[in-house]
Amino acid sequence: MEQLIQTNYALDTFYFLVTGALVMWMAAGFAMLEAGLVRAKNTTEILAKNVGLFAIACIMYMLVGYNIMYPSDAINSFIPGISFLLSPDHTVADVLKGGDGAPYYSGMSDFFFQVVFVATAMSVVSGAVAERMKLMSFFVFAIVFTAFIYPMQGYWKWGGGFLDGLGFLDFAGSGIVHMAGGAAALAGVLLLGARKGKYTPEGESKAIPGANLPLATLGTFILWLGWFGFNGGSELKVSNVDEANAVAMVFVNTLMAAAGGVIGSLIASKLKFGKADLTMMLNGALAGLVAITAEPLTPTALEATLIGLVGGIIVVFAIIIMDTKFKIDDPVGAISVHGIVGIFGLIAVTFTNKDATIVAQLTGIAVIFAWVFITSLIVWSIIKAVMGIRVSEEEEFEGVDQTECGMEAYPEFTK
Amino acid sequence: MEQLIQTNYALDTFYFLVTGALVMWMAAGFAMLEAGLVRAKNTTEILAKNVGLFAIACIMYMLVGYNIMYPSDAINSFIPGISFLLSPDHTVADVLKGGDGAPYYSGMSDFFFQVVFVATAMSVVSGAVAERMKLMSFFVFAIVFTAFIYPMQGYWKWGGGFLDGLGFLDFAGSGIVHMAGGAAALAGVLLLGARKGKYTPEGESKAIPGANLPLATLGTFILWLGWFGFNGGSELKVSNVDEANAVAMVFVNTLMAAAGGVIGSLIASKLKFGKADLTMMLNGALAGLVAITAEPLTPTALEATLIGLVGGIIVVFAIIIMDTKFKIDDPVGAISVHGIVGIFGLIAVTFTNKDATIVAQLTGIAVIFAWVFITSLIVWSIIKAVMGIRVSEEEEFEGVDQTECGMEAYPEFTK
Amino acid sequence: MEQLIQTNYALDTFYFLVTGALVMWMAAGFAMLEAGLVRAKNTTEILAKNVGLFAIACIMYMLVGYNIMYPSDAINSFIPGISFLLSPDHTVADVLKGGDGAPYYSGMSDFFFQVVFVATAMSVVSGAVAERMKLMSFFVFAIVFTAFIYPMQGYWKWGGGFLDGLGFLDFAGSGIVHMAGGAAALAGVLLLGARKGKYTPEGESKAIPGANLPLATLGTFILWLGWFGFNGGSELKVSNVDEANAVAMVFVNTLMAAAGGVIGSLIASKLKFGKADLTMMLNGALAGLVAITAEPLTPTALEATLIGLVGGIIVVFAIIIMDTKFKIDDPVGAISVHGIVGIFGLIAVTFTNKDATIVAQLTGIAVIFAWVFITSLIVWSIIKAVMGIRVSEEEEFEGVDQTECGMEAYPEFTK
Repeated sequence: MEQLIQTNYALDTFYFLVTGALVMWMAAGFAMLEAGLVRAKNTTEILAKNVGLFAIACIMYMLVGYNIMYPSDAINSFIPGISFLLSPDHTVADVLKGGDGAPYYSGMSDFFFQVVFVATAMSVVSGAVAERMKLMSFFVFAIVFTAFIYPMQGYWKWGGGFLDGLGFLDFAGSGIVHMAGGAAALAGVLLLGARKGKYTPEGESKAIPGANLPLATLGTFILWLGWFGFNGGSELKVSNVDEANAVAMVFVNTLMAAAGGVIGSLIASKLKFGKADLTMMLNGALAGLVAITAEPLTPTALEATLIGLVGGIIVVFAIIIMDTKFKIDDPVGAISVHGIVGIFGLIAVTFTNKDATIVAQLTGIAVIFAWVFITSLIVWSIIKAVMGIRVSEEEEFEGVDQTECGMEAYPEFTK
Repeated sequence: MEQLIQTNYALDTFYFLVTGALVMWMAAGFAMLEAGLVRAKNTTEILAKNVGLFAIACIMYMLVGYNIMYPSDAINSFIPGISFLLSPDHTVADVLKGGDGAPYYSGMSDFFFQVVFVATAMSVVSGAVAERMKLMSFFVFAIVFTAFIYPMQGYWKWGGGFLDGLGFLDFAGSGIVHMAGGAAALAGVLLLGARKGKYTPEGESKAIPGANLPLATLGTFILWLGWFGFNGGSELKVSNVDEANAVAMVFVNTLMAAAGGVIGSLIASKLKFGKADLTMMLNGALAGLVAITAEPLTPTALEATLIGLVGGIIVVFAIIIMDTKFKIDDPVGAISVHGIVGIFGLIAVTFTNKDATIVAQLTGIAVIFAWVFITSLIVWSIIKAVMGIRVSEEEEFEGVDQTECGMEAYPEFTK
Repeated sequence: MEQLIQTNYALDTFYFLVTGALVMWMAAGFAMLEAGLVRAKNTTEILAKNVGLFAIACIMYMLVGYNIMYPSDAINSFIPGISFLLSPDHTVADVLKGGDGAPYYSGMSDFFFQVVFVATAMSVVSGAVAERMKLMSFFVFAIVFTAFIYPMQGYWKWGGGFLDGLGFLDFAGSGIVHMAGGAAALAGVLLLGARKGKYTPEGESKAIPGANLPLATLGTFILWLGWFGFNGGSELKVSNVDEANAVAMVFVNTLMAAAGGVIGSLIASKLKFGKADLTMMLNGALAGLVAITAEPLTPTALEATLIGLVGGIIVVFAIIIMDTKFKIDDPVGAISVHGIVGIFGLIAVTFTNKDATIVAQLTGIAVIFAWVFITSLIVWSIIKAVMGIRVSEEEEFEGVDQTECGMEAYPEFTK
C-alpha cells in the first residue's frame, strides 16, 4: 500500500509535468500567432517580446509571484503573505502519512505548472500592444504584472482567498488568466493609442493585414494543443478512476469547444463578409478555448461544443465592435478573444455547473477586471511618465524591428 | 488491489490522452505540410481548409461517426447501429469488477483518441485537391466523410465488423485511415481535374514548386512526432510489462520506419534526379510512417527500417507515375503517400505477423478502397451537381485566397 | 505487489517514451533554428541536412552505436564490445525477480530515448557548416559520427567506462552530447573555411543576416520544450516519491536556466549593441539550457537561473570572439552555444554537486574534446581528400539549394 501511494504520487507528478510542458508550449503559440498577424517590419520585435516576457514571467514568479499566490502564511484572504518558495520538496514520510492533507504530488511540479500559467496571461498583452510599444517599457510592465498584479488576484481564488470563499468558480482561468491578460492589455492600449494609419482622419478603420498567415495558423494549433495541458492539468489529479474520467472529460470538452469556436466564427464571418475569414477562424478556435476554460468539466461534449460555438460567434462581433465603434486598436484581437470571451466563459459556468451562481461569477469578473485594469493603468502610466511607452512616429513608420532589435525578421523577402 | 486497479485505469487513461494529443498535433502537421507545398496565392485557403476540416471532423464524429464505428447495438457486422455517444463514463464499481470485460480506461479518453484519427483521414484529402477546389464544397464533403464514410469501414474492422472476422489486420490504420483518405482524395481529384498549367497541351507535366519548404519540413516533423501517438496509442494499453514492452516496440518501429523512408527516398531521388530532393525526402519519411502503421509491433527494429525504406522508394516512383503517366494532379503527393504506400503497408503485415494472410489483407484493401472510393465519388458528384466543386478559371488564376478567404497569406512577400 | 511492480515498469517505460518523444522533437527545433538563420538560397539544403542526419543517426545508432555505447560484453573500460541490439525485451519473470539488478523499464524504451540523443549531438554540427558544405560529404560524416565517434565517448561515461570511474559527472550531456557536437563542428569548420564574403580582405567580419527569424524563434521554443525530455528523462526513473521529486526538480531547473539565459543575453546585448538582439536572446535561451544540462538536479531553482544567466552572458561574448578574433565562421553560433557553454556547464556541476570535483570535470572535458575533435578532424580530412567537403565558389554564390537539392525554399519570396 505504501508503495502504491508512491506510485500514485509519481503518476500525479508526471501528469503535472506533462501538462505543464504543454502549457509552456503555448508560449511558442502566442509568439507565432502574434508574429504572423503583425507586419513584417514589426516581427522581430514581437518575437523578442514573447521570448523576453516568458523569461521574465518565470523569474519574477519564482522570486515573488508564487509566494504571493500560494502563501504558506497568508495575512488574510485579501492580503497574502510572503513565504519561501524553495523549501524542500515533500518527504516520503509526509507523503505516506496519507489522509486528506497529505501531499500527493511534487511541490516542484506544482510550481512548474503554475509558472507557465502566468506566462500565458502575460502573452495576452503583447499582441494587443504590438507594432508601436517600446520593448523595454513592455518588459518593465511584465515584471510588475507577473510578480504582483497577476498573483494577487490568483491568490484571491486559487490561493484560497476571498473570491474562493464567495463561491466564484474558474476552473482553469478564463478570468484569472485570460480576462486578466485582456484587462492589462486594454489598459495598455488605452494609454498607447492606435497605430499610425489605422484610422483615417474621418475615423474609418483600415485593415492592416498580417504578414504571415501560416505562422498565425501554426500558433493557433500550438495553443490548441497546449490547452489540453492548460485545462487538463487544472483537474490537479489523475490517479484514480474518478479523476482519470474527469481529466478525460476535460480533454474532450477542450477539443470540442475549440471545434465549436471554429464553426461559430466560420458561420459568422461567412454571413458578415461572405468569405471564410481565416484569421476569424483562428480567433474562433481560441475563443472556444477561452470560453470553455472556466468550466471544462461539467458540460457534456455537446454542451462544450455549443459553448465554444457561441464564443466563436461573439469574438467576430467583439473584434468588429472594438475596432470600428470603440477605435481600440488591438492588432491581434487579444482583448476580444481573451477579455470579452473570457467574461462569457465565466458566465457560461452557470449553464452547466449547479454550484455556480451568477452573482458570484459577476462579482469575480468585476473584482478581477477592476483589480487588473486599475493596477495596470497605474503601472502603465508610471512607465509612460518615466520612460515613455510609445516609439517615435519615425520609428513606427520604419518599423520597430530596426530600432528596437537592430535586425529585420525577413531581410530577403521584403523589398 | 482495488486501489491498484484504479491506478492502472488512470495510467491507461493518461496514456490515451497523451497519445491522443499527439495525434491531434498531426492536424497542425498536415496544415503546415500542405501550406508549404502550394503556391503563395493558395495558402490561406488551404490553411482554412485544414482548420475547418478538423473542427468538422470533431463535431460530426461526436454527433454521428463514433456511434457508427463503435456501436453498442450493431445490427450486424455490415451495418452498425446508432447508440448514444454521451453515456456517462465508467463507474468505479464497473472498473473494480475486474475480469476480461471490465473497462480499464476512460470511455471519454477512447473518444478523444478516436476522434483525432478521423481528422487525420480527412486531412489526407485536403492536400490532393489543393489550389482549385471550392472551400465550401470541400467542407460539405468533410461532413459526409467524417460522419459516415470513414466510420462505416472503421466499424468493419475496429468496431468488430466483418473485416475483423475475416482476419484482416490493420494495427493503427494504414488502410482504415491512410488508404481511406487516399481513396477519397482520388475520387475528388478525378472529378476535379488538374490545375491550370499543370499539363501542357502536349500532356507534359510541369513542376509547380511549393512556396515555403521550411513550412513543409516542419509539417513533416510534426507528423513524425504525432505518429508516435498514432501508432503507440493504438496498442490500447500500457499498464503491465507486456503492454509496456509492446508500446515501446511500436515507438521504436515507428521511428525507424520513418528513418528508413527518408533514406529510401533519398537514394531513389539521388539516382533518379541526381539531387537530394527535399520534398521527396519528406514524402519518404511519411511513406515510411504510413507503411509501418498497419503493423508496427511484430517487426524488429531492423525489419521496420526496411519496411520504411521500401515505402520511401515506392513513394518516389508512385508520385512520378501518378503525375506523368496517369496525369493525376495531386499537389502534395497525398494519394501516393497515403493511398499507395498504405496498400503496401497492409501487405507488409504478412512479412512479420504470422497471423496475417495475404488473402485477408487483399480482401481488406479491396473492400475499404471500393467502399471509400465509390461512396466518395457519389458524394463528390452530388456536390459537383448541386454547388460545383471547382473555382472559376479566373479565380484559380488569381488564387483562391482572395476569392475564398478574402486575404493573402503573405501580403508583403509576393509582388 | 507483483502487479504493482508491473505498473511501475509501465509508468517508467511510458515516462521514457514521452520524454524520448520530446527529444525527438528537438530535431524539428534544430531544423527550424538553422533554416531561419541561413540565407534563403541555402535553406532547402539545410533542411535536407537536418532530415537526413536524423534518419542516418537513427539507423547507424541502431546498427552499431547503441551496441558500442551500452555493450553487454565490454572488453574494458576504454574499448566496448559489440553485442546484439535486438535481443528480446525484458520478460515478466525477469522484472518480477525484483532487487537492484532487475529491469524496471522496457529495453526498447531505453533505446528510443538514447537514439534521439545521438541525433541531437549530430544536429549541432549541421548549423556550423551551413551554406558551403557538400550535402553528401556531410551525410558521410554523420554516418561515422553517429555510429562510432559519439558512442565511444558515450560509453566512457554513460556506458560505465573509465570516465565514469574517474568521477566525471554529466547528468544529461552538456559534454557528451553538446560539447561533443561542438567539437565535431569545430573540426569541420576549420577544414571548411569561412563563407565567401564573410570576412573582408582586411579581415573584418560582416554580418550575414538569417532569412527568417520567426522560424529561428520557433526552433528555439521547440528546443526549449524538447529539453524537458532531454534533461527530465535523464533521471531515468520516475515511479516513486524521491524519483518523482527529482524529475520535477529537473523540469523546473531546465525551465529556469533557459529563462536566465534569455535575460543574461538580453542584458549583454543591450549593453554591447544598445539593442535587444533577438538572435542573441535565442542563443541565450539555448545557452542556459546547455549550461544546466550537466547538472539540472542539485541546484535550487534560483541557482539554476543564475547558471543559465551566466551561460547567456558567456554565449554573447563567445560568439563575438569566435567571429571577430578567431575568424571561425559559424553561421548559427553552434560552436559557442553547445561547445563553449557546454564546457561551462560541466564546470558548473562543481558549484552545486558535492560529489563533483573540478579535476574530474576538467579531465572529462579534455578527454571528450580531444577524442571527438581529433577523430572528427581525421574523418573530415579523409572525406575532404576523397570526395571534397566544400561546394564550388560558383555553387556557393548561387546557393546550395539549387545545386544540391534542385529546388528553392522560397521560390516566390526572393527576387
